[in-house]
Order: sequence, then structure tokens, then C-alpha cells
Amino acid sequence: MPSDRPVAALSAADFMAATDRLLTPAELEAALRRVGAERYHMHHPFHRLMNAGGLTRGQMQAWALNRYCYQAAIPRKDAIILSRSDDPAFRREWRKRIVDHDGPADGEHGGEKDGGIKRWLKLAEGVGLDVDRVVSQRYALPATRFAVGAYLDLVASSSMLVAVASSLTELFSPIAIGERVPAMLARYDYITEETLSYFTPRLHQAPRDAEHALALVTAWADTPDKQRDAIGALITKCDILWAMLDALHFAYVEPGLVPPGAFRPAGTD
Amino acid sequence: MPSDRPVAALSAADFMAATDRLLTPAELEAALRRVGAERYHMHHPFHRLMNAGGLTRGQMQAWALNRYCYQAAIPRKDAIILSRSDDPAFRREWRKRIVDHDGPADGEHGGEKDGGIKRWLKLAEGVGLDVDRVVSQRYALPATRFAVGAYLDLVASSSMLVAVASSLTELFSPIAIGERVPAMLARYDYITEETLSYFTPRLHQAPRDAEHALALVTAWADTPDKQRDAIGALITKCDILWAMLDALHFAYVEPGLVPPGAFRPAGTD
Repeated sequence: MPSDRPVAALSAADFMAATDRLLTPAELEAALRRVGAERYHMHHPFHRLMNAGGLTRGQMQAWALNRYCYQAAIPRKDAIILSRSDDPAFRREWRKRIVDHDGPADGEHGGEKDGGIKRWLKLAEGVGLDVDRVVSQRYALPATRFAVGAYLDLVASSSMLVAVASSLTELFSPIAIGERVPAMLARYDYITEETLSYFTPRLHQAPRDAEHALALVTAWADTPDKQRDAIGALITKCDILWAMLDALHFAYVEPGLVPPGAFRPAGTD
Repeated sequence: MPSDRPVAALSAADFMAATDRLLTPAELEAALRRVGAERYHMHHPFHRLMNAGGLTRGQMQAWALNRYCYQAAIPRKDAIILSRSDDPAFRREWRKRIVDHDGPADGEHGGEKDGGIKRWLKLAEGVGLDVDRVVSQRYALPATRFAVGAYLDLVASSSMLVAVASSLTELFSPIAIGERVPAMLARYDYITEETLSYFTPRLHQAPRDAEHALALVTAWADTPDKQRDAIGALITKCDILWAMLDALHFAYVEPGLVPPGAFRPAGTD
């Protein structure tokens, strides 16, 4: 490619294949945002169906039950990242993510009263699931577990740059939430604002986290190779979220083949 | 359950939930075989479609390309298991699996001329794929990579009993091969015996390996907990193989939604 072609005009894959010069921080950010525009799971048919009001209650339950496995793994993922850093300032900032999901300990103040995992269980209960079955993770699709495992493995075994860059899907989540919450409230009569309370604090937590991570990634990625690593990490993370929806769509929408042992909505066989 | 109910009459899931007594080796073997009867991927709709002659060439290519990722990981999986054993006799026996897949080194004699990975590439080439693209693994479905990663993680992080028991899908593979090879030769005119040469040595390698692993598993699993672990390991392995076909079916059969960046058969968009 001509090296002066604007980065944001390239597909993420073209970019990965073609660039060999050091991007400016603004160009790197543009390339990362391009990954989201192409590959973030808000563009997946399952999410489009959800936002259009097209999910049955059983399909909504399957989504909540499987997504719980991802939610439950996030603080473990963040603890792996904490465990790999030598820098107390980094760890203090990154630790907020764990507090956000696990909630405050007795006597801790300053954040939300309930953590994200508890809020997600409220959502699961609100769509009619038994909380204990959700928490057990026994009825999730194996593909969900494999995708979540791939995320834990990525942050454990790659560079810290890759581990941090893989969190940058948070750049895009407020857009998805902004679409999803009003759509769900309008189109599913059993869904209330309380059911969706998970998403409210995410609207300020995610941008705070994404800003921190983006500043680190643009500072640390100071060679073309590292910039490619950062972009590749975000692509892999998008693949993980996308694969989770592929598995849901396959099992519960079309063709609707639930793998042995996985959740079956009431009234189906 | 009444503890004298025959194990083979239970579904694998019922068995896992219900048994609390030590099974005889014959009962444990029956329970393991029951897992295969219920969950081995030869029962998956994608394999049934393949055997019925219903795959397009592009779908056959997608299968060969994705399955390559699994084949390529097998010697790494077996090397992890080697690395965890203190017993030279065990390692000598288990090492045969690596030789089977990687082929003999210069000056080594006694096995097949070509290893399984090279034979799989012959299959991939025979169905019209570019070998370099297959070897790169770049165009595989992310879900394939996550399932393969889950297998490597299972043998690395679980007990040796679980690592060895997860290989027991080899108990069932000769049945699948016995169905698949004649069906593929009869129903796809571009598939020849040479294309399918991967499967010929597997018909004696797999039973040899399965017999060794089954003897170890029945000897090592000397408490009800360990027997449950062994059965659970085989269920997880079946889940891994099943999830790979779910992803293929979703992307290339129905609904046919290829994830971003993955292989697209020629003539599709």
C-alpha cells in the first residue's frame, strides 16, 4: 500500500497485512476503532434480532445464561492482568474493573452498591431464569466456555500490551448499550429498567476504562510490530465475542440445534 | 438412583449426577462407551450430511481447513502429556502418537512413511484447497481455534487421569471412519482413496492408543470421584469435537453466516 493512505480507510485485515510504518497515536486509535466498526458483536445477526424485538423469551434466556459465563470470567481476567504488572499505579487503576464487577467489600465505599455480576444475575432472573442454574454455568454452550477460556488464555500468555489492548472492546460497548437498552425496554414487555440495571453504570465505567487502556496501548505500541499486535489483540477479542453469538444463534435461532447437555428453554425438547 | 441399576442404561449426564459407588472396570468402560454413543461427533448433523453426500465442495473444504487446526494441535497436546509424566514406559508408549502425526525423523524406521498431518494436507489439497492457506490456520473459524485451545488447556491444567481420559474418543473413531470413508468415496466424485489416506493407518493406530489409554484410566480411576473425572473428561472432549462441527454447520450450512475474516469458498461472497 502507499504509506500515506489513511489508516481508517483500510479494513482491519488489510491494515494488518499492509502497514510497515509507525503510526501516530491518532492513526493507531483510528485503526483500533476501525476494528470495532467492522467486527464488534453489535453487528452480529443475533444482536440485531434482539434489538429488533425478534427474540423469543427462551432465546433471551439462552443469551443471558451464556453471557453470564463471560461476565463471571471478567474479574478473573482482570486479576490475571493485575498479577502481571509491577506498577502499583497501573494496578490501582486496573483494580477498579474488579470492584465494578465483584462489588464493594464490607466497609468499602465509593463505587456502586452492587457489582456487575450481581446485576447480571438480576437480569437473568428478570428474564425468567433460575439463578442457581445460571451460576452453576453447567448449562452454558460448550462454545461459550471455550471462547471465555480463550480470553483468559490470551491475557495470561500474551504480552501485557496484547492483554490490555484486548480490553478495548470497551470503546464500543456504550454504543451497543445505547442501542440495546431502549430497544429491549420498548420491545419486550417482561423487561424492565430494573432488569437492565447492569447496563447503567457501564455507561460511565466503560469509557473510563477504555480511555485508560487506550492511553497505555498508544504509549506502549512504539514499533510497527507492537502496533500490529495491539490491533490483532482487538480483532481476537472481537472474534471471541462474535463466536459466542454464533454459538447462540446456531443453537437457539437457526438451525436451532442445541448441543447435548446445554440449556433448553422451557416448552422445548 | 438404585445403585444396582446397570450403568450402561444411564445417560452419561444421569450417571455423572447419580453414581456414588466405585464401578468395576467393566462398568467404567461401559459408562465411557455410553458417552461416545450419546455425544461423539459422528452423530452431529454436519457429519450425517457429509456421509449422506449432501456437502457442497466448498463445505467439504471448510471442514478440511478447520479440522486441520485440530490435527495440527494433536502432537502438541500429546507433548504436553509427555511433559507431565515421570514414567519412561508411559512416555515411550504415548510418544507413538506424536510419531503417528508428525511422521518419522530421518533414519527412524518402523512406522508409516508419512505422518497424519502430512496426510491431512493431502486430503485438504485433494478437495481443492491451497495447502499454504490451510497450514497458516489464518482462515479457520475462531470457534475452531477456541475449541482446540480448550483441548490443549484441558491436558495442561487438569489431572493426568483427565488428560489421558480425554483421548478416549479414539474408542469411537474407527466406527466413524468405517462409515465415512466408503460414504465419501461413493458420494463425492472428486474424492479418491489417496485423498483419504489419512484414515487408513488410523484404523489400527486408534484402537492401539485407545486400548492403552483405557487400561490406564480404569487402573487410575480407583475412587468414585476419579471415575466421575474420567467420564467428565470424555464428555468435555466430545463437547470440543461437537462444538467444532456446530461452528462449521453455522458458518457454512445453516444459516450460513461466515464470521469476519474466515474462509469463504470460491464463488461465494
